[in-house]
Amino acid sequence: MLKAAINAELLKDSIASLAVIVDEVRFRINSEGFTVKAVDPANVAMGIFELRSAAFDEYSADECEIGVDLNKITDLLGIADRSDTVRMELDEVNQKLLIDVGGLSYTLSLLDPSTIRAEPRVPQLELPAKVVLNGADLRRAVKAAEKISDHMLMGISEDTFYMEAKGDTDQVRLGMGRDQLIDMKSGDACSLFSLDYLSDIVKPTNKVNEVTLSLGRDFPILIDFEIANGAGKISYLLAPRIESD
Amino acid sequence: MLKAAINAELLKDSIASLAVIVDEVRFRINSEGFTVKAVDPANVAMGIFELRSAAFDEYSADECEIGVDLNKITDLLGIADRSDTVRMELDEVNQKLLIDVGGLSYTLSLLDPSTIRAEPRVPQLELPAKVVLNGADLRRAVKAAEKISDHMLMGISEDTFYMEAKGDTDQVRLGMGRDQLIDMKSGDACSLFSLDYLSDIVKPTNKVNEVTLSLGRDFPILIDFEIANGAGKISYLLAPRIESD
Amino acid sequence: MLKAAINAELLKDSIASLAVIVDEVRFRINSEGFTVKAVDPANVAMGIFELRSAAFDEYSADECEIGVDLNKITDLLGIADRSDTVRMELDEVNQKLLIDVGGLSYTLSLLDPSTIRAEPRVPQLELPAKVVLNGADLRRAVKAAEKISDHMLMGISEDTFYMEAKGDTDQVRLGMGRDQLIDMKSGDACSLFSLDYLSDIVKPTNKVNEVTLSLGRDFPILIDFEIANGAGKISYLLAPRIESD
Repeated sequence: MLKAAINAELLKDSIASLAVIVDEVRFRINSEGFTVKAVDPANVAMGIFELRSAAFDEYSADECEIGVDLNKITDLLGIADRSDTVRMELDEVNQKLLIDVGGLSYTLSLLDPSTIRAEPRVPQLELPAKVVLNGADLRRAVKAAEKISDHMLMGISEDTFYMEAKGDTDQVRLGMGRDQLIDMKSGDACSLFSLDYLSDIVKPTNKVNEVTLSLGRDFPILIDFEIANGAGKISYLLAPRIESD
Repeated sequence: MLKAAINAELLKDSIASLAVIVDEVRFRINSEGFTVKAVDPANVAMGIFELRSAAFDEYSADECEIGVDLNKITDLLGIADRSDTVRMELDEVNQKLLIDVGGLSYTLSLLDPSTIRAEPRVPQLELPAKVVLNGADLRRAVKAAEKISDHMLMGISEDTFYMEAKGDTDQVRLGMGRDQLIDMKSGDACSLFSLDYLSDIVKPTNKVNEVTLSLGRDFPILIDFEIANGAGKISYLLAPRIESD
Repeated sequence: MLKAAINAELLKDSIASLAVIVDEVRFRINSEGFTVKAVDPANVAMGIFELRSAAFDEYSADECEIGVDLNKITDLLGIADRSDTVRMELDEVNQKLLIDVGGLSYTLSLLDPSTIRAEPRVPQLELPAKVVLNGADLRRAVKAAEKISDHMLMGISEDTFYMEAKGDTDQVRLGMGRDQLIDMKSGDACSLFSLDYLSDIVKPTNKVNEVTLSLGRDFPILIDFEIANGAGKISYLLAPRIESD
């Protein structure tokens, strides 16, 4: 059982944060809210998503699992106004999601969860360094790096967090000291990441005030931030590219 | 003889409502204004257009007929500011339309009206049901339907006007009761229409407060609304698609 | 030696005025500022560019010459905010330009000036007529002409400056008398220009209040206007197309 109502823009932003990783997801639903764990097809990036019942205007649910094509939801929310309320109700017998937004009633066929890749195990990582920064700063550095290279180095050196990209002839670097960061826990950190992935992942961070990065040396990066005004969270785990520098 | 002046935006919107049906039209001109009757190349949609002299700042005309390529006018108006005045004068001898907008003087060769498809006869239809609704509602339903299917059902059931599209797995429906409509005359109505055509036709309705739909069972739909602040009118007649549902 | 700081938008607009002619340029730098003389690959249009030290917030330079790929600078400035300050410093030994904008540090490899086409000699022309007009008027006429033809006539006839394009069937003309122009020196002027070039050249004039055109009969046109709030100047010299009218 699922019956819920939520603001259209808030749902759209939440879905968008998940859609950068995968198209088809299994939502685990219970009385606490929605959760998803998903890995991209190439096994490079993982998304851990949580949208708690507090994000909803109305919410009641029993434990269940549904398979959803995120592109369909994104399409449908594209017609909604920002302030519209999205009402959804699960028809478990027919495996349909009934969605009502601004008078339009959608009947969406769900995917069989068993046809969607199983939930990944989230690795336990000890990432020694942590940086909290404004999402717009992160996005700007990634956009600048993309002009020059297809991968970016992220690390900490002498109490400065840096993002750096080297092309054949040019390079770009954004160095941020403690005073330019919201928070920082210094540590041994220097890893290289694919800009293909980073670029997608940082798209939703543009409006986000605080993004937390957890880093190590040639280790995955953990990027996480709140969604739905604090009533949800998305964490991305992105594998490093190991290259002789 | 034709000598007229009209606001650029008003002319642009009027031309746009006609351009969804055909590219080349015969304008019938007389002292009352401009009229056009035209059918699309596939004989599926008809447009009946009227722009009365009251829409113009200045207007004097004798009876005449001119052939115009609407794309050229649209192109030329694209450079005008919304508040510009468009002055036009017919050079009958050379079959040119002299258009002046914001100091730019265009000399536009007219088309020989005899090379343009003749005016269609407008069929007399008895359409039992009528619905008056906001143009934005109509457009939203059509945009939602396009995501799911290439045709849309429109009809009336138990005092509810509905627009409905069914895809292979999903469906969408907008049902509007009397209280959500501006006006309604109930009747036996349920017809299927091609979204290719509907989508073009409803484009100009986005800014329109009142759109009137006249409907029957497996019958054409008549869509009409005022243009030029009430000094003109466009009516579209769209043939139904007959399909086993 | 070069060390300078300048507003990002001002630099972006200045570079844009030069980029309509060539991609790779030699900047001649000295204590007075930057100058460039460049010809387009087809030898049809020349740009003479000057950005004086007054355009900069900070400026100190010895005489030197650097080769720059304007596309790279444009790319990099695309990420800057309008109000950002762009700091640049020349690393002469490694032939790199160090650019800092909003915390992002770019290291840009310079081009070997000797690989870039040599500075052209600027011909001494006696152009009998001169017209000063608003950049937006010039741009509008060029946009209208493009809809109809691929070349445009510019000239003076009986104290009216005109821009005129003739297509196969249609034509457009913008005539401006003394009262619609900022200034005018009448003279024998009537030349035909390629709209491919004019269209690029007038792009930066949209925000420019005063554009000066110097004209003759079947002679090149000289188009010049101030950039960087008067602390710089760009002049374009465009060869005429000689055609039997």
